[in-house]
Amino acid sequence: MELKGRSLIGSQEGAATRDVFYAWNPRTNEQLQPAFYSASEEEIDQAARLAAEAFATYGRLSGRDRAAFLRSIAEKIEGLREELVERAHQETALPKARLEGETARTCGQLRLFAQVVEEGSWVMARIDRAQPDRKPLPRPDIRSMLRPLGPVVVFGASNFPLAFSVAGGDTASALAAGNPVVVKAHPAHPGTSELVGRAIRQAVMEHNLPDGVFSLLFDRGTQAGISLVKHPLIKAAGFTGSHRAGRALMDAAANRPEPIPFFAEMSSTNPLFILPGALRERTAQIAEGLYGSFTLGAGQFCTKPGMVFLPDGESAHQFTSQLRQLVERADAFDLLTPGIRDAFSASIRARLQHRALRVVAEKPVTTGKAGAIVFETDASSFLKDPELAEEIFGPETLLVRHSDREQILEIARNLGGHLTATIHGTEQDLHDFADLVSILERKAGRLIFNGFPTGVEVCHAMVHGGPYPATSDSRFTSVGTLAIFRFARPVCYQAFPDTALPDELKNENPLGIWRMIDGEWTKEPIAAGHLTAVR
Amino acid sequence: MELKGRSLIGSQEGAATRDVFYAWNPRTNEQLQPAFYSASEEEIDQAARLAAEAFATYGRLSGRDRAAFLRSIAEKIEGLREELVERAHQETALPKARLEGETARTCGQLRLFAQVVEEGSWVMARIDRAQPDRKPLPRPDIRSMLRPLGPVVVFGASNFPLAFSVAGGDTASALAAGNPVVVKAHPAHPGTSELVGRAIRQAVMEHNLPDGVFSLLFDRGTQAGISLVKHPLIKAAGFTGSHRAGRALMDAAANRPEPIPFFAEMSSTNPLFILPGALRERTAQIAEGLYGSFTLGAGQFCTKPGMVFLPDGESAHQFTSQLRQLVERADAFDLLTPGIRDAFSASIRARLQHRALRVVAEKPVTTGKAGAIVFETDASSFLKDPELAEEIFGPETLLVRHSDREQILEIARNLGGHLTATIHGTEQDLHDFADLVSILERKAGRLIFNGFPTGVEVCHAMVHGGPYPATSDSRFTSVGTLAIFRFARPVCYQAFPDTALPDELKNENPLGIWRMIDGEWTKEPIAAGHLTAVR
Repeated sequence: MELKGRSLIGSQEGAATRDVFYAWNPRTNEQLQPAFYSASEEEIDQAARLAAEAFATYGRLSGRDRAAFLRSIAEKIEGLREELVERAHQETALPKARLEGETARTCGQLRLFAQVVEEGSWVMARIDRAQPDRKPLPRPDIRSMLRPLGPVVVFGASNFPLAFSVAGGDTASALAAGNPVVVKAHPAHPGTSELVGRAIRQAVMEHNLPDGVFSLLFDRGTQAGISLVKHPLIKAAGFTGSHRAGRALMDAAANRPEPIPFFAEMSSTNPLFILPGALRERTAQIAEGLYGSFTLGAGQFCTKPGMVFLPDGESAHQFTSQLRQLVERADAFDLLTPGIRDAFSASIRARLQHRALRVVAEKPVTTGKAGAIVFETDASSFLKDPELAEEIFGPETLLVRHSDREQILEIARNLGGHLTATIHGTEQDLHDFADLVSILERKAGRLIFNGFPTGVEVCHAMVHGGPYPATSDSRFTSVGTLAIFRFARPVCYQAFPDTALPDELKNENPLGIWRMIDGEWTKEPIAAGHLTAVR
Repeated sequence: MELKGRSLIGSQEGAATRDVFYAWNPRTNEQLQPAFYSASEEEIDQAARLAAEAFATYGRLSGRDRAAFLRSIAEKIEGLREELVERAHQETALPKARLEGETARTCGQLRLFAQVVEEGSWVMARIDRAQPDRKPLPRPDIRSMLRPLGPVVVFGASNFPLAFSVAGGDTASALAAGNPVVVKAHPAHPGTSELVGRAIRQAVMEHNLPDGVFSLLFDRGTQAGISLVKHPLIKAAGFTGSHRAGRALMDAAANRPEPIPFFAEMSSTNPLFILPGALRERTAQIAEGLYGSFTLGAGQFCTKPGMVFLPDGESAHQFTSQLRQLVERADAFDLLTPGIRDAFSASIRARLQHRALRVVAEKPVTTGKAGAIVFETDASSFLKDPELAEEIFGPETLLVRHSDREQILEIARNLGGHLTATIHGTEQDLHDFADLVSILERKAGRLIFNGFPTGVEVCHAMVHGGPYPATSDSRFTSVGTLAIFRFARPVCYQAFPDTALPDELKNENPLGIWRMIDGEWTKEPIAAGHLTAVR
């Protein structure tokens, strides 16, 4: 497919504006063709209007029809796999095997959401039947279910050109819930974005959906994103990226005349606690796992373990020396963009000058590449400087040695919000540090035992979220089927005739979904007058 | 019980500060004893700190224990019923029968949430079992459930001295979910607030809970509320009141260094559509119902129908004349506070001077009282002036006559967000106006058919919410059991040993709750290795 570099505004193509940019190959340091054109304010407005128009139809489509649409998108992406992986590899320098995996994950996510909306129980249908004889007043029949919010803006993420971009988890969950989507492509992989965008557009057309169901906008900078978030017809947004950009957009969403939900997944250092028994018993194994985790994707994961707490002593020495060997044996990394590379270098330079830090493992590399690096400090120094708990995006981690149990708990209590927190421990450790678990529950969205935080499973129970600043709203997740709840709101129908109710709430339960009837979950229909055979 | 006028800061009493205020009897226009003292900044800070300390314990209490605590609160409130109704009647001028009912509702809400958390399935437990043989990577065991957020601030509402105040729905749902609560009492009914606050405090002590689980702060103005919402240890807030105050607090919550969820139920004019068939067939009946609804509680309900759309013609004349008789026969009303009375008078004066409005029914009253009043206009004038769609708090409503179907739909499409939207229609009307229903679904949280919006049932399916500006976040409700979801967040446990998991997620399902296991809802335990008898 020939790339055109134009935004996709429903079924139309954007104009060749004056604001031009190019993708960049981080491995060869070369510009990639073709030119991409930033969307104009008129195009942004047009995309939002089309989305709002499309919502009237798309928001009322059955779950089965939305499922078919999502599956078509997955098929079309699979049809482009080779081209997609090739272009994404050029634009991101991520290994092809990883990009193959990410394509599969992206399609898997689309199909998982298709399954959720086709089955249909996700709408949390609730029915409280009328009690005409109740005193002092009769109770009317009351039924409620989740309904989509309206047009959703999705921001592509730099570090997942597929799974968190144009047809990533945000788009899949927003479309699944019944919302049109306007994607603001990440300028680091515009070609990958265009390929996926065209696949979605084709699915829109084949399913005879209104063309505003999906638009894709390019922008080299931040203006289009801000304009979209402020647009009165946009009703929610999902973002994965830096804290600075996330907070700016979050504030824009909150300060609109009509504030809207804004889901930002922003920054997380993912504390990892190695408890004494585990460190003794599995020194080398944990060092190996940690190395693999903090350098995975060149350390450019939001779940990268960026601070590691371990007890001082002989095992810690062994652990560190093991880690040193792994780091020194490693290859150099290509980071995603010149901007990320510069930010990483600046952060590392700052840490190298930090008095309380010393380098315990380092891979020297040539200019333009990034080498893995491990710093070390002690618990008291760590507690004194909050900057040491901040995320560095790239292959770096910080070991923090502590001398006793109280220091660990103090560190835990002082943590900000993170996506994950990990504990390595024996059964005995877990018993001795039960209070650590209960502190960490308040600090992170996912707690991991004897594992590593990178690798976020796409499943029903996953929580990829966490208290601020990890995300803008800890009550939601951006990965897994729970992510659909970000883009829906409950609507209640009081005393409606059966024929005027949505299928999900009709007496006979034509969709066969789980519903809460008078407080009890059941799949049974409601017989005329009363309920048959509940439970 | 002798009122002391002091804030309740955990088990301590607030100081007699210099900032003194009194309750007011709207019926007699007299000040009520005793003096109440605004909480100092130190007291506010102390309440937040105690709450944060208490959270470590209270947040981990079992659902059964929290249920027992909530039921104790209900019992203690019932023990004070006479005293409570008497004082609330003095402070609000609301009829005693209404206050009796509100007490029962308040206790009913506490017991309903007790039932929800004792049963336990509300936590949405989800379990995805490990797949050790999965390729290319094994899948770890992943389990998640809802956990409380932390200390919650609740603002008492002027118009519901019990059901939306100290032990109202916000407090009941926040406590049920496991969050300590700091209430900012409404200065219009401080005595009622103190009585209920003491009842809660007594329950805290009897259940041996940390005393920071509950605090009650007085303030004559707005400073305490702002300070609480900005306090770093506060993690969420619930508010019912005016749009101006709600938006100010909402902005304060969003602009904190760590933004927090803020649930404001603010302003709603509750459009009511009378379709042609219904108007013809039930002219007098609908007029009577409308009169009862817009004057209920002297029109001081957030669900008061404040704009009524009906087709021009003979039936509309009959309807108006019927309404006129009802209004003229009515008694005068005492509004809740001098402030509400002044705001009502000012709004009515402005409408009386509005060129496009005319009065069709009015009850003349003496100074200090409020009389029911009905205005009328035509659809074009209504569409021209957005102010006509704004809420007036008090016994007023506006009839809008239209000439055709298209005008109704245009009006509906132009509506802002409301708590409710009501349709009176025959089966035929509903068929002819099916698109009206689908527009209103996007404009309100609750749609009512052939009924009236006042009277919000406390049940599982209720949605008392709606798009902005009706509430700050349309994804949640402040009435009904769904309200508990405002104050909880999901936490995920990856590869945890069974013994370290919360009971809700343990293999054997010791609490017997509904859980989603590998995508299927079941109450079955998980047998060693795999699941027995799902479905």
